[in-house]
Parts: sequence; C-alpha cells; structure tokens
Amino acid sequence: MSQAAAAIQPVAIPRGTVLFRPDDACAGFVVVSAGTIKVSLTAENGREIVLYRVRPGEICLQTFGCLVNHGAYSAEGIAETDLVLEIIPAGEFQRRVTAEPEFRQRLFSAVAARFADLERLVEDVALSSIEERLARALLRLAEGGAMVDATHEALATEIGSARAVVSRQLGAFARDGLVAVERGHIALVDPEGLKHLAHPAE
Amino acid sequence: MSQAAAAIQPVAIPRGTVLFRPDDACAGFVVVSAGTIKVSLTAENGREIVLYRVRPGEICLQTFGCLVNHGAYSAEGIAETDLVLEIIPAGEFQRRVTAEPEFRQRLFSAVAARFADLERLVEDVALSSIEERLARALLRLAEGGAMVDATHEALATEIGSARAVVSRQLGAFARDGLVAVERGHIALVDPEGLKHLAHPAE
Repeated sequence: MSQAAAAIQPVAIPRGTVLFRPDDACAGFVVVSAGTIKVSLTAENGREIVLYRVRPGEICLQTFGCLVNHGAYSAEGIAETDLVLEIIPAGEFQRRVTAEPEFRQRLFSAVAARFADLERLVEDVALSSIEERLARALLRLAEGGAMVDATHEALATEIGSARAVVSRQLGAFARDGLVAVERGHIALVDPEGLKHLAHPAE
Repeated sequence: MSQAAAAIQPVAIPRGTVLFRPDDACAGFVVVSAGTIKVSLTAENGREIVLYRVRPGEICLQTFGCLVNHGAYSAEGIAETDLVLEIIPAGEFQRRVTAEPEFRQRLFSAVAARFADLERLVEDVALSSIEERLARALLRLAEGGAMVDATHEALATEIGSARAVVSRQLGAFARDGLVAVERGHIALVDPEGLKHLAHPAE
C-alpha cells in the first residue's frame, strides 16, 4: 500500500468474508462506505454474542483499540453484507487525528456513540429477561418490517443465549400469537405486542 | 473557574458523594488523582449493574461521551472512596487534545482500555453462569486478599443479578467450603477453588 493519503482506495469485500479474528494484528483504521460488519465475541465456553455492527459513519472500537495500543483483536469481524471500505494505515490515521480537527471530531463522536451502544448491550444482557431481549432483537432485526430472516442459532448469538432457550421462547411467542415461526425466518404477527414486551416499563 | 490552564486545582471529594446522575450535564473532563469513582446503570426494572470504576490513570467514558457529543450522563457516578480529582473544562479539554500529543495518546489509550473492560463485562454477563460471575466478582473485590467487604445487595449490583440469587449462590459456595458468609462480609476460604470456578475452561 502506498504511503500517500491519496493512494487509499476503496476495497470491495464479499459478504461472509472474515475480516479479523481474535489475536490478529490490525492492518489499519477501517472506514465503511457501504454495508455492515458484524463484530462478535466467543466466550471460553463456546457461546457467542454480537457486540455491535459497523455501518457507514460508525467505528469499529476493536480496530481503534488495536491501533491505539498496538495490540491484537479480541473479537471476530465478519462481512455481514457485501462491503465497500477504506483501510487507513496506522501512520496516516495518526496524521489525520493530529492535523484534521474534523476527522478527530468524527472519530470521537463515533467512539462515544459506540460506547453508548455497548452500555445498552450491558443493560440488555445483565438486567433484562430472555423474553425482553428476544422481543427487542426481533424488532431490531426486522428493521421496521414484519419478517426476520434468521435461524434460532443466529438469534441466540444476537442475545447471548443458547439456541434451545431461543427456540423455547419463540414457541411461547408463537402460542401467544406474537410471531409465526417458519424454516429460517420468523414473521412478526403482532409487532405492537412485541414492543410492549420489549419495553415493559414504558 | 478561571479559564487559564494553570488555574485548574485538585478538588477533594468525600466518599459517598454522588458526582453525576442520569440526565445531568457535564462540568468537564474528570482526571482522578486519588481514589475510586463507581459508575453504575439502573435499568427500567430498577435493577442496577456496575459498569466500571475510574481509578487514577483511567477515564470515565460517560464523561468523555457527554463532552464529545455535548450530551448528558446516562449513568450514575459515585465516590466509592474519598477522592482527589481535577475537572478540566470542555474548552481546555479540546485545547489539550489538539495541542498536546501526549494528552491525546493517554486519552486514546484510556478509551481503548475502558472499551476492553466493557467487552469483558458483556462477555461476563451474557455468556457466563451466575456461579462463574459471582466467583470472579469475589476474587476481584478481594484484590488478592481473603476478605470481601460487601453485602449481598452490593454483590448483586456487581454482577447485574438479584440479591436473592446471590444469597442462594453464596449458600452453595459456603456448603462447598469455598467461602464463609458473615454479616456484611464474605471470607474466601478456598480462593483456588473459586479461581477454578471463575475460569472453568482454563
């Protein structure tokens, strides 16, 4: 890769590509132009949870951490969709942080926003029931629509639970007329009912 | 408060003082010289979890977030011990970030370290059993010693669980000869046994 800033070219990466794994070194600061990176963590016991997604304008805190502390990744990053991204090498990243107030401000804002996401995740997993967490995940993944295209396994990763727990809870939702469970996807039959479960105190 | 950098004076704050609450505005960037700030989150259902502690050399990400995005706090910060700290006003904070590479590098490192802590917390609460989480919390709070000075309620807040769950698990630990439960504190009778529970895969 050339050292000149002008030489940083967008890269197209196909869906499903593993961008980094735990213990990988960091190639540079990643700026996503299009698509979504999913960053997830696998625990000692083999269970997995989605930490966050990186979309255009957002930051991968894992990459930030590796760059700043010259460390390695501790989570896995995968192209959830086809991606277009730029990789800013470490030296150029440092130069922009120093010389470009606007770059720095965007970086800080993205870090702060990402932190707020993680705080919500902690609140979610530490303080909410499986019922609440699964209702929220379904609404989030439906993105305003009525269909979630995810396996029970993927939903378990989404909320940091086990597949069997998700299947049992989906069964309960189906009996209550909230969802219809089909092979590989879940139809949201009663989104308002799910919203009520997702935020019981509101 | 004077605008001159030289005018920032250390402030002594007694233990138990609430430094900020959700929706409070941010007075400035906090640098802790001595003592510990405990930052915790209370969920819609009233349950509470400790997000992190701020010790000398560490950063309050809540404060960073408020400063960067001109927002308000979303968690509570309390002086867990007597404190000595400096409050750097927003303008002076921005000046130092721009003009002082060393200040900026320390800030970035502290942000990255704090993020790694939060990631561990997510892993802990999402993917570990109550038994594992409580064993880890006891070892962490004992700080290498054999005594934890905390109520069951405080331990519940530490691991994001309910007091009754903590009492039941402590009872099980006591029956297994791992701890001795006394009024207001817990003696670690078998720290090696607790370490084994805390990291079952190692």
